[in-house]
Amino acid sequence: MSSIELERLIAVLAKLPGLGPRSARRAVLHVLKKRESLGAPLLRSLEEVLTRVKPCSVCGNYDTEDPCAICADPRRDEAVLCLVPDVADVWALERTAAFRGRYHVLGGLLSPLDGVGPEELDFGGLLRRLDGRVQEVILALPATVDGQTTAHYAAERLEGTGVRLTAPAHGLPVGGELEFLDDGTIAAALRARRRLE
Amino acid sequence: MSSIELERLIAVLAKLPGLGPRSARRAVLHVLKKRESLGAPLLRSLEEVLTRVKPCSVCGNYDTEDPCAICADPRRDEAVLCLVPDVADVWALERTAAFRGRYHVLGGLLSPLDGVGPEELDFGGLLRRLDGRVQEVILALPATVDGQTTAHYAAERLEGTGVRLTAPAHGLPVGGELEFLDDGTIAAALRARRRLE
Repeated sequence: MSSIELERLIAVLAKLPGLGPRSARRAVLHVLKKRESLGAPLLRSLEEVLTRVKPCSVCGNYDTEDPCAICADPRRDEAVLCLVPDVADVWALERTAAFRGRYHVLGGLLSPLDGVGPEELDFGGLLRRLDGRVQEVILALPATVDGQTTAHYAAERLEGTGVRLTAPAHGLPVGGELEFLDDGTIAAALRARRRLE
Repeated sequence: MSSIELERLIAVLAKLPGLGPRSARRAVLHVLKKRESLGAPLLRSLEEVLTRVKPCSVCGNYDTEDPCAICADPRRDEAVLCLVPDVADVWALERTAAFRGRYHVLGGLLSPLDGVGPEELDFGGLLRRLDGRVQEVILALPATVDGQTTAHYAAERLEGTGVRLTAPAHGLPVGGELEFLDDGTIAAALRARRRLE
């Protein structure tokens, strides 16, 4: 159909989440059509990210510096660690600006079915960070089977270290309407109901 | 939120068709997580395409060779040219393997509202190709206002050159159900109805 170079780029792009062969083809044509304004900056940016961005050796977040900007920031509360599966979760939490502690990225969730055991995840790094200054670990793990398996395992590993374990509250999303919510969320929100002052 | 390098790559990726800031972020994290199996091949492929793939100076299709593989193929019928707006249309037609002539890519559609006039499109290249061997030009242009404006303009420019102008048939899509088709398509299919032998 078209040259092998184009086919190869389309095949690689189609592996990105959210893209398939059809949208990858459109993306490649778009990049070629806007070679100067899009193609060249994309190539430069991708090269820069792939050569300069590395996982932080402390928390696992991605940054050009090691330790990352969050770990190196003296204004972040070193007494609170937020345990998250992936860097995407760090970014989601940072966008809210609601958390001023530090993070630890596990690198996934325990999943016996997919063959992901504790050695695949960074529990070792988490335990090494408990040097007495950390007082609380927030288990920000999803309410899925794998998420809860991981939370239980983390709780076991942290037993006896003296840190307080917490988890974000479950409840109604802000702006969410009951009608469109799943039963589990509604039930959790009712169980955790609070008295209005 | 994260390093300036990451933000820049996300911003560029978000400009691709089908991607937005959210999916661009997921794509970047995916590329970093699969640095060897996805990031490196993506960078290599993109660089190769941007440096080696060029528009064919004859027809406008993209290829590493100039003239492109289609223009250079002696088995393609040089008597029939298919006029299409974009390279995407060449690829779509090639996938069907139903057309064995050659192409001419206009590079868009006439659009007075968007300020696209005849000088922005490759009508000059089209006319230069009419050297006596071309007997038919298929106007494979969409049934939109811009598409039909472009078709009329092309027909005017080709008047007196002696080539036969044709257009693909309108009708029911193969496998399409009446219930789900737009009125224009159904009406066109009825008008062009044929006697069953």
